[in-house]
Parts: sequence; C-alpha cells; structure tokens
Amino acid sequence: MSMLITGSIALDTVKTQLEEHADLLGGSASYGAIAGSFFTDVHLVGIVGEDFPQRYLDLYRKHRVNLDGLQVVPGKTFRWHGEYEWDMNERRTLSVALNVFEHFEPQLPASYRRLPYVFLANIAPQLQLHVLAQMERAKFIVADTMDLWIETAREPLLELLRQVDCLVLNESEARQFTKETSLIKAGRKILQWGPRYAVVKKGEHGCLLFGADFFFSAPAYPLEDIHDPTGAGDCFAGALTGYLASRDRVDHDTLRKAVIYGSAVASFNVEAFSLGRLQTLTRQDIEHRYQLFKLMSHFEIG
Amino acid sequence: MSMLITGSIALDTVKTQLEEHADLLGGSASYGAIAGSFFTDVHLVGIVGEDFPQRYLDLYRKHRVNLDGLQVVPGKTFRWHGEYEWDMNERRTLSVALNVFEHFEPQLPASYRRLPYVFLANIAPQLQLHVLAQMERAKFIVADTMDLWIETAREPLLELLRQVDCLVLNESEARQFTKETSLIKAGRKILQWGPRYAVVKKGEHGCLLFGADFFFSAPAYPLEDIHDPTGAGDCFAGALTGYLASRDRVDHDTLRKAVIYGSAVASFNVEAFSLGRLQTLTRQDIEHRYQLFKLMSHFEIG
Repeated sequence: MSMLITGSIALDTVKTQLEEHADLLGGSASYGAIAGSFFTDVHLVGIVGEDFPQRYLDLYRKHRVNLDGLQVVPGKTFRWHGEYEWDMNERRTLSVALNVFEHFEPQLPASYRRLPYVFLANIAPQLQLHVLAQMERAKFIVADTMDLWIETAREPLLELLRQVDCLVLNESEARQFTKETSLIKAGRKILQWGPRYAVVKKGEHGCLLFGADFFFSAPAYPLEDIHDPTGAGDCFAGALTGYLASRDRVDHDTLRKAVIYGSAVASFNVEAFSLGRLQTLTRQDIEHRYQLFKLMSHFEIG
Repeated sequence: MSMLITGSIALDTVKTQLEEHADLLGGSASYGAIAGSFFTDVHLVGIVGEDFPQRYLDLYRKHRVNLDGLQVVPGKTFRWHGEYEWDMNERRTLSVALNVFEHFEPQLPASYRRLPYVFLANIAPQLQLHVLAQMERAKFIVADTMDLWIETAREPLLELLRQVDCLVLNESEARQFTKETSLIKAGRKILQWGPRYAVVKKGEHGCLLFGADFFFSAPAYPLEDIHDPTGAGDCFAGALTGYLASRDRVDHDTLRKAVIYGSAVASFNVEAFSLGRLQTLTRQDIEHRYQLFKLMSHFEIG
C-alpha cells in the first residue's frame, strides 16, 4: 500500500560545533518522504518557492516520490537556520523565514485522497487538519508535532489527536504537552486524548510505544558520533509509516517491527548532514541494522 | 555458588516530596545483599554500631544472609539523610555521619576468602581493594562506585578497575569519570581501563552493558510512580551478581539475563521506602516481572 506525507519542505543551514553547511534539503516532509520511500510509494503534499533547486526535485524523484501534490509557487522556499551545541541534544534556532509557507493551503490531487497510510509530519496542526479533511478512506494516520504547536496551537492539536491513530513526539514535548514528569504517565495521558497509539522518542535512549494494554520499549542504536541530528525524528516516523503501509497491517507485532525500522533509518540519517547518508542507503543496509537491533536487545526467557 | 558482598550499612532518613521516614535500613551492602539473596547465599562484610537495631539483623537472617563478616563495634552506625525533588532523579544529601565507618577495616572470615562471586558495593575504593586483597579464588567480581570517589579517589578507583570483571555505574557518573558526553564512548573507555564488562545504569531509560564486541541494551520497567529510588542501583547489581552466582557461568546469554533480573528486582525496590517491598517479594514475583520485561522489549526478526 502507498502512503501520503505532508509537512514542511525547507532549505536548511545547519551548524554543529565542527561543521556548517548551507542550502541543505530539509523540512519534516523531505526527511519523512525519503525515509518512507525505502518501504513503499510516497506521495508528497507540500510547497516550495521558485528558488527550490532542481537537484532536490531530482532527489525526490530518484526515490520514486510522487510530486503531484507539490506546489511550486512564486517566492522563496521556507528556510531554517539552526545550531547544535557540543551536546547534540541541544539545538538553537538562529533564524526562520516562512516565505511561501506563510500562505500554504494544502490541496490534495484527486489521486491522493484515498491513500490508506498517512504521515502528517511536523507543520501547524491547522494544516495537518486541513489535509486530513480531504482524505477519504485513511486506514492509519500518524502525526508528529513540536514544542511550538504545543505552546501556541494547543486546541487545534487536541482536535488533531481525536482524528489520528498515532502521535509521535519527543521526550521533552511529551512532558511539556501533558505536564507530567513521568514519561509513562505522559504516554498514557496522550492516549486518553484520542489516538490509539503514542510514541515517545528519547534520542540516545530509544523510544517508547504506548497502546491500550500494550507497551513496547525500543533501544537506540549505539552511535559513537552524531554528525547532524536534524530530521532524525522525521525519518523515524516516515520509515515507521512506510513500513506499516508496505505490510498493510497494524497489529502489535507489526507495530513493534515498524518502530525498529524507524529507529534503524533514523540511526543512519544522523551519520551525515542533511539527507546525505540516506542517498546512498540501501534496503539491505537497513535490514542489516535491524538485525543488529535484534542482537543488542534480545534476551532469552529466564 | 555463593557470593560475597561488601559495602555500606546505614540507618537512613529519606524524604521525598510526599513522605519522610527515619531510621530505615540502608546502605549499599544492605540493598545488594537482600537483592542477591533471591538467587543465592549471600555473605556480608560490613560494620555497624551498637545502636544497630536487632530487627535489621533479623531481616538479614530471614534472607539467609551470612553475618560472620559483620563487625558490631562500640559507637554509632553510619547515618545518611537525603531528600528527593519532585523529579526523583534529583537527590540532595542533607547530612552524613560516618560514625563507626570512619575506622572500618574489613576483615574476611576464613570461610569467606574463597567465595567465587563478589559484589563490591559502593564504598571507598580503598576499602573495596582491601577486601579484594583478602580474596583467593574469585571467579567474577562486580564493583559499584559513586561520584564522590570519582572526584576524590580517582587513582584507587583506576587501580580497582584493573582488578575487577565488571564496573557498574550510573549515567552521570560514567560521563563524569570518562569526560565523554556520549555514553557509548564512555562505556568503551571504561573497558580500556581494565574490566571486561561495564554497565551504565540510566534510571527510567534502562541500562547498557558493554563488553569487547558485545553490547546489550536493557529497557526499564514502566513504573508510573516511584516511592523511594534509594538503593535501586545496589539492588540491580546485587541481583545481577546473585543470578550469575546461581548459574555459575558468565557467558553473554547469562549476562543479558542477569541484567534483566537486576532490573526487575530494582524495579520492585523503588515501589516502597527502604527495603519494604523486597521483604514481601518472592522469586515468583521476580520471574513474573522478568516475563513482562521480555514482553515489552521483544520483537520478531524483520
């Protein structure tokens, strides 16, 4: 089965304590789409300006991403400029220019409306809702969000939660959103707000998947060096949704596997700037790393 | 096989934001000994004052802890007074009275010297070395430590590392000790200092086991409420060592199981103040929780 993805498409400038790169392909939808493309056909809904480089359109196409839902409009592409501390968990946004994103109204081509698997990557919840309103027969909807929307768009976000199957967010966002210090309490509270599942991403500590009478704790891949953490969460959720679409089932076993595939793709993505690592990645590489996840977390019955 | 344990024995006053209790049985060796006793015979090396309550001696005996190595001397038992913030990961020591501990010279009864499994629970590394010097045929030695010794007794601690098989320490101690922000780098650096294995405990995020060409990531049990985190790490390492002793083997499979048994016992211990929960705990309870650890972290090959 195929998946739809919507979210931001950006030109990023990313600075770490060791390197700085400008005009990188970025945005939640770019990471999510390429990550998902290792598992299924991806259909992109988004917006870019006339300055958007041809090479990035080619990169999407190389990954068989359907661009019928991509609007190319007069003006400039959304730009993000961020900096990481030595501790790669600490990120500062230096500047944001919404540009064409400011007046974005997602319009779904007719061919997109019945896509069964949906990843609403991080954008304003109002836009995520706007996309959902145009979908007709979605089987499973995954949504991501961020601290900004938790703070400034809580009501639309809560409305979104009533319409999606799985919310993905990181540890600090889960605490901020629920006002719980315990991640276990936070995860369970999110379920009360609507979605059947919630995933709390913990970076170097792996992630937690919550469902009714269901809990799964996934490890993180032991990376010694992280070159650029940007987009890791988007890759995680994009690969997770893509894997579910490829299997066309959402039972507990498949969800557990989807979380591991998501973690595996995210672990590759941080090994290079922007989408550099994913451009040379193969499905075989992913399968190999999946096996390593199994090896490093498996133990026998006592 | 049997195990020897040495470490502190204390009378604790523990304050959380909800409760305060005084004159609790505490100390690293108390927690480690009771935790280990669910798996094997435990032989305790330690010191208490004449004020040490009979009921706590009875508690050790109820768990078949051999007390031939326990010195009862004139003076007062070591006392610790600590307070937890709302976030139970944050602890402040309000006061410490070393009392009889100040002049403690561990003396091993002859019957203790050939015990094969050893847990050097948290005390000054000089004392841990002093105990080791009296051991004759130890098969596997686990050592714990704390921030204070990393700061004030680095050289004896590094000497200890050359003599033990496994160092157990928590996340912040691992970073402090190795000056690495990455826990993966920290774990591998500790191995270069001597021990064959290192365990980095991450509290609510589980723990990591490092060996040469060996890595195991264990989840934490999803507890909604933690009543008293005191002694969780001591219980973890005590149960880990006790399980290895009971199996009398230290291959990778057994080590992985030992880490899960350690995590299971530690997860019970934080459910009540002091050793309250462990006093009613059964081996069957532990086995049941072990199965839950399996359920919550198991996934199939992709």
